[in-house]
Amino acid sequence: MADYWQATVTTPVNIAVIKYWGKRSVALNLPTNASLSVTLHQDQLCTTTTAQCSKEFASDRLWLNGKEEVIKPGGRTDTCIQEMKKLRKAYEDKYEDPHPASEWHVHLCSFNNFPTAAGLASSASGYAALVHCLATVYRLPNTSTELSLIARQGSGSACRSLFGGFVAWDMGVNEDGSDSKARQVASEDHWDDINAVICVVSDEKKGTSSTSGMQRTVETSPLIQERIRLVPARMAEMERAIAAQDFDAFAQLTMKDSNNFHAVCLDTSPPIFYMNDVSRALVALVHEFNRVSILQKRGHRAAYTFDAGPNAVIYCLRRNVKDIVNMVMHYFPQAEPFKDTYKVFYGKDTPGQMPLPKEFNEAVAKRWEVGAVRGLIHTKVGPGPRVLDVEQSLLTPEGMPKSLAEEKK
Amino acid sequence: MADYWQATVTTPVNIAVIKYWGKRSVALNLPTNASLSVTLHQDQLCTTTTAQCSKEFASDRLWLNGKEEVIKPGGRTDTCIQEMKKLRKAYEDKYEDPHPASEWHVHLCSFNNFPTAAGLASSASGYAALVHCLATVYRLPNTSTELSLIARQGSGSACRSLFGGFVAWDMGVNEDGSDSKARQVASEDHWDDINAVICVVSDEKKGTSSTSGMQRTVETSPLIQERIRLVPARMAEMERAIAAQDFDAFAQLTMKDSNNFHAVCLDTSPPIFYMNDVSRALVALVHEFNRVSILQKRGHRAAYTFDAGPNAVIYCLRRNVKDIVNMVMHYFPQAEPFKDTYKVFYGKDTPGQMPLPKEFNEAVAKRWEVGAVRGLIHTKVGPGPRVLDVEQSLLTPEGMPKSLAEEKK
Repeated sequence: MADYWQATVTTPVNIAVIKYWGKRSVALNLPTNASLSVTLHQDQLCTTTTAQCSKEFASDRLWLNGKEEVIKPGGRTDTCIQEMKKLRKAYEDKYEDPHPASEWHVHLCSFNNFPTAAGLASSASGYAALVHCLATVYRLPNTSTELSLIARQGSGSACRSLFGGFVAWDMGVNEDGSDSKARQVASEDHWDDINAVICVVSDEKKGTSSTSGMQRTVETSPLIQERIRLVPARMAEMERAIAAQDFDAFAQLTMKDSNNFHAVCLDTSPPIFYMNDVSRALVALVHEFNRVSILQKRGHRAAYTFDAGPNAVIYCLRRNVKDIVNMVMHYFPQAEPFKDTYKVFYGKDTPGQMPLPKEFNEAVAKRWEVGAVRGLIHTKVGPGPRVLDVEQSLLTPEGMPKSLAEEKK
Repeated sequence: MADYWQATVTTPVNIAVIKYWGKRSVALNLPTNASLSVTLHQDQLCTTTTAQCSKEFASDRLWLNGKEEVIKPGGRTDTCIQEMKKLRKAYEDKYEDPHPASEWHVHLCSFNNFPTAAGLASSASGYAALVHCLATVYRLPNTSTELSLIARQGSGSACRSLFGGFVAWDMGVNEDGSDSKARQVASEDHWDDINAVICVVSDEKKGTSSTSGMQRTVETSPLIQERIRLVPARMAEMERAIAAQDFDAFAQLTMKDSNNFHAVCLDTSPPIFYMNDVSRALVALVHEFNRVSILQKRGHRAAYTFDAGPNAVIYCLRRNVKDIVNMVMHYFPQAEPFKDTYKVFYGKDTPGQMPLPKEFNEAVAKRWEVGAVRGLIHTKVGPGPRVLDVEQSLLTPEGMPKSLAEEKK
């Protein structure tokens, strides 16, 4: 047996197309409605986490993006760690495993490959990484769905980041949350043509946190009740659209659900606004893009969705990325050239300077100043968590972050 | 008998606190829910209309703000004129009146004392003026509630501008609309302390027209059904708040209903946005103003409401106008000095430069550039339509607009 056990994993970000908003239990992160998301590719957005446990450690410790965080007893991180230790203990008891890893303290080191300030939910990939990483360290045989019950307690949407592709979080009915868990609806290979253009929007004001916001909605919005009633049918429709690779239906449902979610935010007292004038302009562009596309008998070719912030995620099929990026950059000029990771532009194509689609009403939005959309990220549907090699560990054999160790030198 | 009959009237604008949104009959302007409004004072906002009818006239004609408009057969204006002629005909038949005014053509001349571009619903006061003016010309004994059935067919909210004070529009259940009419809930004297600060917000984009917008909402928003269910209880609560002069309840209901209306707009496919970033900032200011007021045990002291546009109407009691204007001008500096019609500032008071309320969180909004709020109008609850003297006629004895006659000279 080694002096310590260790694993390093990466986990993806997911962006819901049927949104989670409203908790029936705050403590257990039990939702008032089911949700469904697309897992985005880790080449663009992911969390990397190393967990190391050792009998030498004096306490559980955590470094996030290079800075040590206090693990508050009974807090979300502590809850996830304790739940994972319980799973390990049960494993030790059941298989008479002589290694008392469940009794050791754990050091965790984690960072995101995307800027936290971008407003892209990092808690989902973060808590998924924590749970998946500990499951790997503890050599647990549990399925991702079983682990999702624990990730959910860190951050609701984290339960969906334990899978690649298309992921449902079934709300469950049990009071203890034992049936409120994630499952994969379809893998990233089933419909690998699904791409996403993320428009990172500047936000001058600090928004309302999701946790306090959704609680206020449940307490004060009469419309949330109607939303709760309509989501089950939407979940079924969305699962069907994904199974059939029906982008037209997928797009319509995605946009309707995003708007429905922001509508209940607005119906909250005091109202919650996440979208701003830039978001509204992006909405107008996508609808105009689709209007022209429908005229051409091509159906909906783009679908925006907004989480609890002003950023737009525009889903589309790979073949339409070029037109969409060109359109967005026409209205929202960028300081930096477009990072064309997946090579959709070729030859003399200049994103933002190519013609708009025929019959596109250019007056649907004004042209904004550079910086109104701070950046564009082209990504696609991606796989679930990955385990990295030992060389990629973020911790030294002594259990301290390598970055800190380097700084000391 | 004179060669012509003539009358000149002024009618007020009204701003709903329980909003009208959604038609169950487009042709008859029958709403899917009841609504309730405050009539604003005509000293600040009104429509003036002269109607003249004469056997010499060759056709019905209309001049709006100095420009002749075509009266489309079967259109809204024509409908109102024809309905009024029918009422006159019934009167002639019943009372054996020998003057066949119902057979004469009518010339109408109308203007608003406020800029049309300000986005303040001018159709309400406009159609109310048309109907009230013809009723006066035709010497009809009908009540305002009876006339409201006709004004409603011009523009739904016009039916509420036939009364001063606080006005309900009961939705009715009959298919022919015969019970969908306005009634006065309380006169302007009942609660004359109710003031309004209108923040005229610049809007770069042209919004969706109310008529097409509300139809799209009825057809596509699942949440509108819940709105329709909840309005009757809100109407009752609002009537109670007005009867009791309970500003705290009035304010809470007003804001909730405005947000609820904009929520169903957002839930529409494609979504309808009327509020912009300036509107959102005004919402944040009013909520912060109320938060501090509630801390001081003074309850809600301000209530915003937004119609189908970005302008905020902030209702408050007269004693709070000063603090509200000062707050708005602190964040939204004005090119012109505040027009202090009702003398709420005195001595060295400078609106926008006085202290904000104690404990007010100044960071709740940023300070905007001059022009983001284009103007502030201080007004108050006001009376219903008024009949003016003959000297104030907008038409010459020949039935032509005086302004045009003057231009010819």
